[in-house]
Parts: sequence; C-alpha cells; structure tokens
Amino acid sequence: MQLPAVRFRVDFGRDRAVGPGKVALLEHIGTGGSLSQAARELGMSYRRAWQLLESLNSSFREPAVLTAKGGRGGGGARLTPFGRLLIRVYREFDAEIQKRAARSFRPVTGLARQPETRAAPVVRLKDRPKKG
Amino acid sequence: MQLPAVRFRVDFGRDRAVGPGKVALLEHIGTGGSLSQAARELGMSYRRAWQLLESLNSSFREPAVLTAKGGRGGGGARLTPFGRLLIRVYREFDAEIQKRAARSFRPVTGLARQPETRAAPVVRLKDRPKKG
Repeated sequence: MQLPAVRFRVDFGRDRAVGPGKVALLEHIGTGGSLSQAARELGMSYRRAWQLLESLNSSFREPAVLTAKGGRGGGGARLTPFGRLLIRVYREFDAEIQKRAARSFRPVTGLARQPETRAAPVVRLKDRPKKG
Repeated sequence: MQLPAVRFRVDFGRDRAVGPGKVALLEHIGTGGSLSQAARELGMSYRRAWQLLESLNSSFREPAVLTAKGGRGGGGARLTPFGRLLIRVYREFDAEIQKRAARSFRPVTGLARQPETRAAPVVRLKDRPKKG
C-alpha cells in the first residue's frame, strides 16, 4: 500500500454515503454478474450485500444495479449505466486524492515512524545463539 | 453542510491514522492551551483525548503537543511546530478535496435523493386547520 493512504467515503446527505464497500460491491457485480458471487468474493454476507444495494437505491433516484430473481438468469445482477458512472467518478476521485495526499502530506510523511525499523528485533551480542 | 462531503482519514502506516478527531483535538489545544478543556469542548473524555495524543506521538518522530503536569502551568498543553504543521497540511488537503469532490461527483450529485423534499409534510386541503 502506497503511503500516505486516504480512506474516505462521500456523503450525499443523511444516510447517503458511498464508500469503499459499496463501490467494491458494484465492481464485483460488474465483473461477475451475480450478487451472491460478489458478496462471496468480498467476504461479506449476502444479507449485507443486499443492504448495501438497498442503501444505494434509497440514496439515488436511479438504481445502480438491476437484479433478477431466479428464473433463467439464475438470480443475476447487472450494473445500470448509473452504476457504471458511480464507479467511474468514485475511482477517478480516489486516484486523484491519493496522488494529492502524497504531495500535500510530504512535509509530514517523512516524520512518520517506520514500523519496519521498530519491529526489527534487536539482537544483542550476548543474546546471540552460540556457535557449535 | 456542503454536499457532497468527503469524510476521510489519512493512514501513514499501520495504526498511524490522522483523522478529524485528532485534528480537532489539536486545534482546540492550540486555541485553549489545555487538554482537559479541549476534550470538554469536543465532548470526549479526558482519557480518550490522551489516547488520541498518545497515538499521534507513537505515529510520528516529533511530538505534536507538549504537556505540563500541574505546577504553575496548571497542566497546560501546547502545540509544537510539528503540531501546527500537521493541522495546516490536513486542513489545506481537506479544503482541496471537498472542492474537488463537488466537481468530480457533479454528474452523480444531481441524482441524489433530497431528504428535504421527502421529509416535508404533505398537508392536504382536508387536513388544514379550519379557520375561525
């Protein structure tokens, strides 16, 4: 992971936030064409995935995903043009602010402690396993 | 609140995040010169405020705040130059990405449902209080 990393969500109003979970779900639906598969791939319950979709649907006047129950499509799900738009603007914004964070926080980033160097065990001479 | 609004935190490594809580705490310490007062103003416990400061101190090689226990200073706290730098770069970044979000999400923002218009009570003619 590139550091600093910005974790964010975008509020469009009360209870109308779009964050990494919803966008990842849309992306996986776009790839796999299935809500249950997308949930599985993301390690979330089917119920949780449904809740995220319902939250999206109640946040915007356009649906982001169309679902078909059972039948020949086997309960498939597919992105709408709005769903694709939402992914695109979110990911473009994401890429842009990660780049900007690298620039903006440069004076501070250099002062961040390095976990790698702290975690390295200090082996003192007397603790060294004896040879032979 | 301007919408869309980006809620974010910046990760400088594992357990090294700077978000709105820590920055607000620094700002209040800068203004009031007291950790307990800052905690009170932000509605957080003194213990919580200490934890946030300790987290900052373990995240960076420079302290953001110097504290004095009791004595003539009365347990005061004051920002270091690094603390002021951290506030400044965070707030500049904040302002910048809020502006950028307004631009980036414009195609989507117009499709967000308006809670105001939904919440407005519909007063039907027959429900109107009768005059006189």
